[in-house]
Amino acid sequence: MSNPILKNVPYLRVCDDTFFDTLNAGAQQKSYKKGQILFLHEDEATRFYFIVSGWVKLFRETQDGVQSVVNILNAGNIFGETSIFENDLYPYSAEVVEPAEIISYSLNDLKKEIEKNNKLALSMLSAMAKYRREQDAEIEHRSIQNASQRIGCFLLRLVEQDAEGPIKIELPYDKILVASRLGMQPETFSRALAKLRDKTGIRVQGSTIEVDNLDQLNSFSCEACSSEFPCKDLNYAKK
Amino acid sequence: MSNPILKNVPYLRVCDDTFFDTLNAGAQQKSYKKGQILFLHEDEATRFYFIVSGWVKLFRETQDGVQSVVNILNAGNIFGETSIFENDLYPYSAEVVEPAEIISYSLNDLKKEIEKNNKLALSMLSAMAKYRREQDAEIEHRSIQNASQRIGCFLLRLVEQDAEGPIKIELPYDKILVASRLGMQPETFSRALAKLRDKTGIRVQGSTIEVDNLDQLNSFSCEACSSEFPCKDLNYAKK
Repeated sequence: MSNPILKNVPYLRVCDDTFFDTLNAGAQQKSYKKGQILFLHEDEATRFYFIVSGWVKLFRETQDGVQSVVNILNAGNIFGETSIFENDLYPYSAEVVEPAEIISYSLNDLKKEIEKNNKLALSMLSAMAKYRREQDAEIEHRSIQNASQRIGCFLLRLVEQDAEGPIKIELPYDKILVASRLGMQPETFSRALAKLRDKTGIRVQGSTIEVDNLDQLNSFSCEACSSEFPCKDLNYAKK
Repeated sequence: MSNPILKNVPYLRVCDDTFFDTLNAGAQQKSYKKGQILFLHEDEATRFYFIVSGWVKLFRETQDGVQSVVNILNAGNIFGETSIFENDLYPYSAEVVEPAEIISYSLNDLKKEIEKNNKLALSMLSAMAKYRREQDAEIEHRSIQNASQRIGCFLLRLVEQDAEGPIKIELPYDKILVASRLGMQPETFSRALAKLRDKTGIRVQGSTIEVDNLDQLNSFSCEACSSEFPCKDLNYAKK
């Protein structure tokens, strides 16, 4: 039987049911609590993961325990899969940050399929190129945008970019996590959010942000960016 | 005849001579002066480029003309090739920053080869995964390391990592370019370099930096990093 869930991962759509059957035969679904670690950076990699529900943080850590967040992913995303190009070592650690249902699959099955299915290899190359562009934009933002502009950009990623009129934006996870996703200290985030509010007239109530229209945010954030709004480069919480 | 130069690009080594012959048939070699633009971000992409000598800056620019440097590359590197996964648009601009000899090849030839040669697709996937790890490290550094530590890290990338005893490190290009590569204003770079000198005892004379031993730098820079020294994650000026 095919796996309708995994088939929703864009770059796996080119695969046929035989491959999904093979993956399913070795699949393991588990429930995880907040705070559980799935694997650590440089651990030997044998599985890749698909998020059915919940949130997972990918991160790296200095010897002193300071974290750098690589990504925070929700339902519909996979992670750990690029380990097959990293000498079978995970290039980051993974921690569940909101209770999650996660299915793991054999990396070896994926590896064997990529080696014989050129359509999958090409499809994965496109996905990697897209990620590369996202990372270039991320690096650019950390040079050029101030903290308030980066929060504005983060909010713009959470809504349909052609939405009109007043919009309510819900932060996808708590503010401390949003701060860490953006590479900011929590205090910096709070100050920058207050400045964003003062500059653009958005209203902040707990984790809800009310915007009269998206122009308020994009005229403030996107002027310090090499991409134009609507934006094809960045992809934070939603995929 | 095969192309011994292009064959040195690590991920093209899996290709056979027939492919290099095809590429060579459409190759164009040119000399470029400092300041010449090869192509602009979002230009339609028909060629990819190999640097025989000189330096090329890849960058993106906001509407106000503020630049973000994606990379600065020297002899032996190719660029523009990932456009085939970007709807045939260049994902950055390219400018010659030191007089350069550059050969361009047909992107369409590369595209056709990747579509039929799975070894090349896999080899390119590995290269993209490596670049992805470098970018993750770059993003991490911009969150965790201070400007002096990032300069120390940049210097460590310019030497053989197992070198012992006193070493002279030459900056590969002028300080303003190094600053822009690191996403710093020139003044920030100067102040941070002075601080690095005071903290580690390195000696700076123009574009030459003298180090008694690499421990001076790595104990200062690598303590604020998730990778250990010697480092497999970063790759700045040398490839």
